Amino acid sequence: MTSIDLNADLGEGFGRWRLTDDERLLSVVTSANVACGFHAGDAVTMRQVCELAAERGVRIGAQVSYRDLAGFGRRSMEVPPAELAAEVAYQIGALEVFARAAGARVSYVKPHGALYNRVVRDEEQAAAVVEGVLLVDASLPVLGLPGSRLLELAGKAGLPTVTEAFADRAYTDEGTLVPRGVDGAVVTDPDAVVERSVGLARSRAVVSHSGAVVGVEARSLCLHGDTPGAVELARRVREELVAAGVRVEAFA
Amino acid sequence: MTSIDLNADLGEGFGRWRLTDDERLLSVVTSANVACGFHAGDAVTMRQVCELAAERGVRIGAQVSYRDLAGFGRRSMEVPPAELAAEVAYQIGALEVFARAAGARVSYVKPHGALYNRVVRDEEQAAAVVEGVLLVDASLPVLGLPGSRLLELAGKAGLPTVTEAFADRAYTDEGTLVPRGVDGAVVTDPDAVVERSVGLARSRAVVSHSGAVVGVEARSLCLHGDTPGAVELARRVREELVAAGVRVEAFA
Amino acid sequence: MTSIDLNADLGEGFGRWRLTDDERLLSVVTSANVACGFHAGDAVTMRQVCELAAERGVRIGAQVSYRDLAGFGRRSMEVPPAELAAEVAYQIGALEVFARAAGARVSYVKPHGALYNRVVRDEEQAAAVVEGVLLVDASLPVLGLPGSRLLELAGKAGLPTVTEAFADRAYTDEGTLVPRGVDGAVVTDPDAVVERSVGLARSRAVVSHSGAVVGVEARSLCLHGDTPGAVELARRVREELVAAGVRVEAFA
Amino acid sequence: MTSIDLNADLGEGFGRWRLTDDERLLSVVTSANVACGFHAGDAVTMRQVCELAAERGVRIGAQVSYRDLAGFGRRSMEVPPAELAAEVAYQIGALEVFARAAGARVSYVKPHGALYNRVVRDEEQAAAVVEGVLLVDASLPVLGLPGSRLLELAGKAGLPTVTEAFADRAYTDEGTLVPRGVDGAVVTDPDAVVERSVGLARSRAVVSHSGAVVGVEARSLCLHGDTPGAVELARRVREELVAAGVRVEAFA
Repeated sequence: MTSIDLNADLGEGFGRWRLTDDERLLSVVTSANVACGFHAGDAVTMRQVCELAAERGVRIGAQVSYRDLAGFGRRSMEVPPAELAAEVAYQIGALEVFARAAGARVSYVKPHGALYNRVVRDEEQAAAVVEGVLLVDASLPVLGLPGSRLLELAGKAGLPTVTEAFADRAYTDEGTLVPRGVDGAVVTDPDAVVERSVGLARSRAVVSHSGAVVGVEARSLCLHGDTPGAVELARRVREELVAAGVRVEAFA
Repeated sequence: MTSIDLNADLGEGFGRWRLTDDERLLSVVTSANVACGFHAGDAVTMRQVCELAAERGVRIGAQVSYRDLAGFGRRSMEVPPAELAAEVAYQIGALEVFARAAGARVSYVKPHGALYNRVVRDEEQAAAVVEGVLLVDASLPVLGLPGSRLLELAGKAGLPTVTEAFADRAYTDEGTLVPRGVDGAVVTDPDAVVERSVGLARSRAVVSHSGAVVGVEARSLCLHGDTPGAVELARRVREELVAAGVRVEAFA
Repeated sequence: MTSIDLNADLGEGFGRWRLTDDERLLSVVTSANVACGFHAGDAVTMRQVCELAAERGVRIGAQVSYRDLAGFGRRSMEVPPAELAAEVAYQIGALEVFARAAGARVSYVKPHGALYNRVVRDEEQAAAVVEGVLLVDASLPVLGLPGSRLLELAGKAGLPTVTEAFADRAYTDEGTLVPRGVDGAVVTDPDAVVERSVGLARSRAVVSHSGAVVGVEARSLCLHGDTPGAVELARRVREELVAAGVRVEAFA
Repeated sequence: MTSIDLNADLGEGFGRWRLTDDERLLSVVTSANVACGFHAGDAVTMRQVCELAAERGVRIGAQVSYRDLAGFGRRSMEVPPAELAAEVAYQIGALEVFARAAGARVSYVKPHGALYNRVVRDEEQAAAVVEGVLLVDASLPVLGLPGSRLLELAGKAGLPTVTEAFADRAYTDEGTLVPRGVDGAVVTDPDAVVERSVGLARSRAVVSHSGAVVGVEARSLCLHGDTPGAVELARRVREELVAAGVRVEAFA
């Protein structure tokens, strides 16, 4: 029987501001990418999300970011590697306290936003993220894009790696993401997203931008939850996966 | 043989800015209160200080603060208890990563600046700091003023407590600090500071503001290191303590 | 004919986060308290709100705050007066650029959150806010509670002062606000809020917590807009004021 | 008689931290690039520097930066143009308050650090900086590198432009700066810096990295002041310029 992990970003408020519907998302996903204070995520929210996730058996991951509250971590930055490595470790450590207090552990690391995109190709920053993870725990899985420099370097360093796919993003014939900005890069039709989710989970394949069937290696699907409609869609994806005989569970 | 711990604030720069002479202070003190990013202390500095401290066998403590870089943690704040508790835990967790990476552990917690002063009497905030420490580790010692609400509540909660004294501060006949602002509150004569240090360590006593000999319970002396002269004085204090037969070592 | 100003807080998002429905609020109020970046308010939002306000003839005011994004300016802080004065001036100056670019001016200053509450009684901080305003413009009106230290000191310094009232807050027999936390301190029934608004505007009076009619001096009513229902209520207050023959217009 | 402006970065502390010796630098330079709070510069320091500068007749400029206290504005960032433009305007506006309060005005704008380097070539960000300046004042001079995109676009937009040179940086045969990192990129010999300063001021020329004499258009020389030795050198440069018959004065 095929299985798939569902991950989403959670705890992305800050102080007075809220963004993600953490409560409802935690009844859909199996892995929670928790913001650690650098792009979002105050300490109270981090604690609450960890408690809820632990109660529901949802795996807790550290969603590490550039230090950029004003830009929500979406602005690529030329951070020197030693700084980036230390900042990654800092964020994981802060989250670990709340995960442990809730009876759980930080079980993986996923970069956020601009950092996520950058370490797809940027050797130096990918290596810095890996160094930051190693500072904390040499057995901590790293979640990212298949074929990314991040996963390649993490694997070389002996860290477990977990691949993910996006049901709401168009893919090229090479199995990479069509860049945002290109026409049709984002799949907005809910039915298509559900169908692609099932295809990705069952066949590890998706119909590319040009119409070809391409293989996409993915042990996890990334869902979005920063709008009410998105949470509904995430829930529907989960239900259809289950209906299609896919076991929805955190990656091994 | 009498023994005393020497503690000082370290790693109190931020990014481009430096304040404390960490390298030299670490050859004087036995316990390092490391800034954790809320009043000072970037991740690179935290890592470096932990590495140096571990190399030299200096104990690493988390110097937790209000979130206030602009005010260096010196402005008292009405932080709701749940926020304060979570922020204390966040800071300890972030530092713990670098302590562990250096082969050591965070071995105690000491509040900084305005928070330090506030939890001498403020029940609510003292309880929040204790809650924050408990979230991380129910056996983590708390360093503070004898008679403070912080140490009282920490003790009640089962946390080990460590008392400290200040050789460069005047004391009342009741053994409490003469408030800053009162004439003579700060002892500026280096010889007097050295003499008082030896007295505090050997006799657990000091000459009060009014000239009486008062007992001051202290397992640690707090030294200052944010000026070149202060580091010299700290070194002299250590030498004179050793010369007076006091064993300078981290608290048990 | 009686007239009243309606003011509300606007632009209280930050980066990715939104809070106030600025677009709709600007069709209700006559004075916009614009967040200036210290408790909320990024530069893009400040610019947009100023442009919208200028288009609609809504007066622009600087909503100055403690430097506290994490606490949304709701945590009282012991800021030294020189710092507070300079920070108030800094915020007004930053907003002035966007007001001028939109063809308008910053026309008043109103403290936000914990600072607003604090300068009701705190002489030192009230004086610091006044000093900050004077640094910018000795003819800039200050908006606040009648009887507050802020308005008293502003008046003594020659600054115009503007009093405001809250239709959704209970009043004591002395005409001061019943503290939040006291039972019944906040009026939640929309009909009551509308009725009290009309009473405050027409008769400069309100029924107190104990049932007495007390005079409340107010040239402006403060409306809230951080929930969808609040904007609806604000709109209704405006409509009922107009229906009751009150001229809704910015203070002179 | 030849004249030259001398500019330096000032007010680059933040809260408890100090970096530049503002007092002494202000007796050397004719133009002060004042940090505006984004990479450094708290409101109290901005006020003090403006007061000192106004007293001594030193021109006040806004040293605008990416929002990056942790990186001191030295990390290039992918800031969307609308954000960058608004943030530039915000910083100028905040400084203008203190300049006016001191009886002066913000008289020019100079980007700091990574932003300075980026707008040498980056069309989009250069245009955004120009837009930010235009939001404030369409007659405000922009200080930068000759040949930079920034000065080119500023000029096209009708803003006055002021070129600057660096006596402590090596130049290519094309009159551009040898990139840092290349051997010999920074001139460290004080005598050479003094000699090059005089040459740049008197002959608008400098000996290039390869030994050729190349023309460098510069109405201002940038001096550095973040170390005690640097201030001494800056003072010597000024004295030697005067001795060589160069009039040291703010640009027209």
